[in-house]
Amino acid sequence: MVKKSILESSEEQLHKVRHSLAHLLAASVHKKFPDAELGIGPIIEDGFYYDFKLPRTLTPEDLKEFETSMRELAKQELSFKKKIIEQSEASLILKNQSFKLELAKELSEKKSPLSFYETGKNTFIDLCAGPHVKNTKEIDPEGFKLMKIAGAYWRGDSKREQLQRIYGVAFNSKKELDEYLARLEEAQKRDHRVLSEKMGIFMFSDTVGAGYPLWLPNGEIIKHELIEYMRTKEESCGYKYVSTPILTHGALYERSGHKQFYGENMYHFIDPEGVETFIKPMNCPHTHMIYEKLVTSYRDLPLRLAEAGGIYRFELSGTLTGLIRVRGAITQNDSHIYVAPTDLKNELKKVIELFRDVYSEVGLKDYSFRLSLPDFNKKGGKFGGDKKLWQWAADELSSVLKESGLPYTEAIGEAAFYGPKLDVQAKNVMGKEDTIATAQVDILVPKRMGLNYVDDNGQKQNPIVIHRAILGSYERFIAFLLEQTAGRLPLWLSPIQTVILPIGEAHQSYANEILIQLKSNKIRAAVFSENATLGKRIREAEMQKIPYILIVGDKELALKQISIRHSAKGDLGVTNIQDLSDKLSKEIKNKSRE
Amino acid sequence: MVKKSILESSEEQLHKVRHSLAHLLAASVHKKFPDAELGIGPIIEDGFYYDFKLPRTLTPEDLKEFETSMRELAKQELSFKKKIIEQSEASLILKNQSFKLELAKELSEKKSPLSFYETGKNTFIDLCAGPHVKNTKEIDPEGFKLMKIAGAYWRGDSKREQLQRIYGVAFNSKKELDEYLARLEEAQKRDHRVLSEKMGIFMFSDTVGAGYPLWLPNGEIIKHELIEYMRTKEESCGYKYVSTPILTHGALYERSGHKQFYGENMYHFIDPEGVETFIKPMNCPHTHMIYEKLVTSYRDLPLRLAEAGGIYRFELSGTLTGLIRVRGAITQNDSHIYVAPTDLKNELKKVIELFRDVYSEVGLKDYSFRLSLPDFNKKGGKFGGDKKLWQWAADELSSVLKESGLPYTEAIGEAAFYGPKLDVQAKNVMGKEDTIATAQVDILVPKRMGLNYVDDNGQKQNPIVIHRAILGSYERFIAFLLEQTAGRLPLWLSPIQTVILPIGEAHQSYANEILIQLKSNKIRAAVFSENATLGKRIREAEMQKIPYILIVGDKELALKQISIRHSAKGDLGVTNIQDLSDKLSKEIKNKSRE
Repeated sequence: MVKKSILESSEEQLHKVRHSLAHLLAASVHKKFPDAELGIGPIIEDGFYYDFKLPRTLTPEDLKEFETSMRELAKQELSFKKKIIEQSEASLILKNQSFKLELAKELSEKKSPLSFYETGKNTFIDLCAGPHVKNTKEIDPEGFKLMKIAGAYWRGDSKREQLQRIYGVAFNSKKELDEYLARLEEAQKRDHRVLSEKMGIFMFSDTVGAGYPLWLPNGEIIKHELIEYMRTKEESCGYKYVSTPILTHGALYERSGHKQFYGENMYHFIDPEGVETFIKPMNCPHTHMIYEKLVTSYRDLPLRLAEAGGIYRFELSGTLTGLIRVRGAITQNDSHIYVAPTDLKNELKKVIELFRDVYSEVGLKDYSFRLSLPDFNKKGGKFGGDKKLWQWAADELSSVLKESGLPYTEAIGEAAFYGPKLDVQAKNVMGKEDTIATAQVDILVPKRMGLNYVDDNGQKQNPIVIHRAILGSYERFIAFLLEQTAGRLPLWLSPIQTVILPIGEAHQSYANEILIQLKSNKIRAAVFSENATLGKRIREAEMQKIPYILIVGDKELALKQISIRHSAKGDLGVTNIQDLSDKLSKEIKNKSRE
Repeated sequence: MVKKSILESSEEQLHKVRHSLAHLLAASVHKKFPDAELGIGPIIEDGFYYDFKLPRTLTPEDLKEFETSMRELAKQELSFKKKIIEQSEASLILKNQSFKLELAKELSEKKSPLSFYETGKNTFIDLCAGPHVKNTKEIDPEGFKLMKIAGAYWRGDSKREQLQRIYGVAFNSKKELDEYLARLEEAQKRDHRVLSEKMGIFMFSDTVGAGYPLWLPNGEIIKHELIEYMRTKEESCGYKYVSTPILTHGALYERSGHKQFYGENMYHFIDPEGVETFIKPMNCPHTHMIYEKLVTSYRDLPLRLAEAGGIYRFELSGTLTGLIRVRGAITQNDSHIYVAPTDLKNELKKVIELFRDVYSEVGLKDYSFRLSLPDFNKKGGKFGGDKKLWQWAADELSSVLKESGLPYTEAIGEAAFYGPKLDVQAKNVMGKEDTIATAQVDILVPKRMGLNYVDDNGQKQNPIVIHRAILGSYERFIAFLLEQTAGRLPLWLSPIQTVILPIGEAHQSYANEILIQLKSNKIRAAVFSENATLGKRIREAEMQKIPYILIVGDKELALKQISIRHSAKGDLGVTNIQDLSDKLSKEIKNKSRE
């Protein structure tokens, strides 16, 4: 047996502390609400949570009260004792706890022993597998904090009861907690939802509903710039844009198999003529219909069809997160490349090059590549179809990646159901990882849907499809881009590229003159007029993350000059309109990050 | 009493002929299918139709048979006699005709006499108000033609029985019919659905469903060019683009009143969390939510929010027509201008200017303006709200139109429910008129939704909204543009702007060289390689309506020249790559129509 490292054991100890605090929380809640029914209370990253069914909705004041109560319990030096209890006695202990009874019943059915942990003597007992601290002495009573209350379904099932979840964070000491909270505060400033409020990126409306973002003018500019940027890139690489409707009759998803495999996330309804109709949760099957129209022979391949496609996916309201997880529109930077097998490697190479090229220009820095392969050793693994074909596809993708020199990790067993894939992973401000982009080799669906072409021997063949989204969805991508840059976007993506601040009334018309000139050169400029102090206007411009601030007063007006200040580089001295306009145009055109 | 003009009486006579032919059709159908149940058989533009419930689906052969039978009946010099018949006897005559019985019952309830027309003696009798010809002698037996069969619901109600409708065209003579059919054939060549097949504009898929167009690469270029063109125009006029989701909770349409007024055309469903959710059939209410976020004071006005918004409307499948009437996406060139009343006239002026400017550049020529006003003399007319406000809004719009010098007609009683409007009308190849664009003054909805701003006296006011769609929906606009230009779009809108035809193998690499140069100058170029004769490739290019055809052979290669041929202007002599590229770039940039 390998000895545990100090790091591992300290990690384990922290897990015990967090889990034990969850029990102290449950004890405190139960003390205040004797009728409370308890759900589960696991540890999570940075802390723990516990779910409760309570007679009323909790308030922030309740959390303060629970914290105090938990601290008092911790200071009482209570022991945690494990007890294995028979079903009949357990039922008695849990008699008013319907959720716990459900769990206990399932454990009994599986012949698992019913493990309980008792805190102190008659303080609190809970069905739990552990492990816990031996004694609350091990817990720093000032090392934890209850953070927030959120709704959660029992067992994550929206058809079952909704409970109140209390989240806590916990560390070994008050010092570690304070450091964490400071990091959190800093991260929250970079939270794309916070930045959006300052920069006017997007909004949600209670009337429209959760998960349906409305893009405000500034945000729409970022999205539009990125869409047009990708379109230009892709067209120069031989992609052709198409546009398909959001709706389709169910027949399409019967043919593609999505009805069977993707049911829960799809919105659907019966139209007034009685036809089952779906809102598309992906563009592939629609695009495949265009393939059928355009392709007859191998001479028509490779066919690269792209769409800035808005799709909609039902997600539980509790999982919705700003622009990172929305119900829609999810505007995908989508493309389907139809290739003959002999061309797969070549096309994959081009896709990888495009990833590299684009990411350097848009200013995303913190991401990693993950090669997701099938698990060939797993019997009845989730991959379907011919094993040899799978192995070949996995080898093609792996070898292209190796040749590219791009760093990546391998994830065995993470392939899509139709083939191996390359995912781009990034973390949000709070460290939660998401897939932001993907390139997937699809060796199954074209065959299932009967897509084909005639090869140079006159034989019918199924093409292979590369599904690729370099920027993933524009919604999620912009969220990550804002967080990684703290809102300081490259000039070409900035909604307002420069703002002109006339010091006083006398300089207003000169400011307007500059504005007109810049606008005529397609520079997105604005004037903040003299209804506030200069300092206030500068702060406003900085809050909005406007890259260039141009100040004009008496001296500038007299010499027909402009004082430039850059949000990151500070004072850049003076220039004239023409030079300024040329400088900005050049920086925009070069997509350089300064 | 004014004497009827010859024109009027000849028109009336033709109506009688058409209506009488509808009866001869019904007689012929009834003879072949004694169990046929008859619907209605009115006259329409150019002819007539009749609806039947039949034991089987009709074929084109059936139509031929009916035509022959109708001709025989016409030649028999049968009389048409009107008879007023009592309800009891009528019920006997109509005993197996459930649809006719329904009509007869309704007439009786209204105390209207039951008028029948009998053709010949025991040949055919039908419940009908007339009028008809006195005798089939008045009908030229060669002056009509049965055109097609289509599905139709009884009384146009999709919840009632589906019938088979037979359409016929009829004129006073064979000569007139032949002229009509020749015009029809010519028109069909300009039909945007026919052009689409040749030019690769859009497709429908049975699997996706009727009314849901899929834009093919060439069509998507036209749509994208128009969208970007309008965006640039609009941004230079101070519009700001936003982007709103296709879905919304029902709460939005309760607030806006659309749930009550627009129910039938809206797709809706209950989402998995139990919330009634709608697919938007218009962008206004979503955009109004953004107004609420952005506007506080009169200083924030006018606010011009624009969206290239995809919307969806349920339409009966029988009414769907190519890109002219779709279910969606209907991509609207939409904008909502929020103004204080004092600014309405000024903003309307700018809208009219934009109409004029845009239409001249996109190449649409055949359209007319219609000013739709409320009917103030009509008691309980469909307009709601304050009459003085209506009169004011109507006067503002009328005076702007008058000052503009634009020709227009007035349509009293055609206003929207929320205000007066200006519609742009155009006819399709077959002469059917549709509204293709609109500018509407909305004096009611902002108040109903509680949209407001604080005026310069600190008082809360409701803004007025101008809803305007200069290009209407891109789908319908492109359909009309294709039909009016017969596919010969302005160069900047042509999906393929120029094609290079190498005469033989030896000229291929020179062709590619030209291609690369043109593409690098953002000219959409293609090479049609030497796998077909030059003549065939020229015809292919002409069929696809490619404006410039470039031919390169031995001579051109030797001298590094290019022979240019223009689709409309024919041979334009020779030039070199650089001059050609400059010429095309200039023509594209100037949006000139040559």
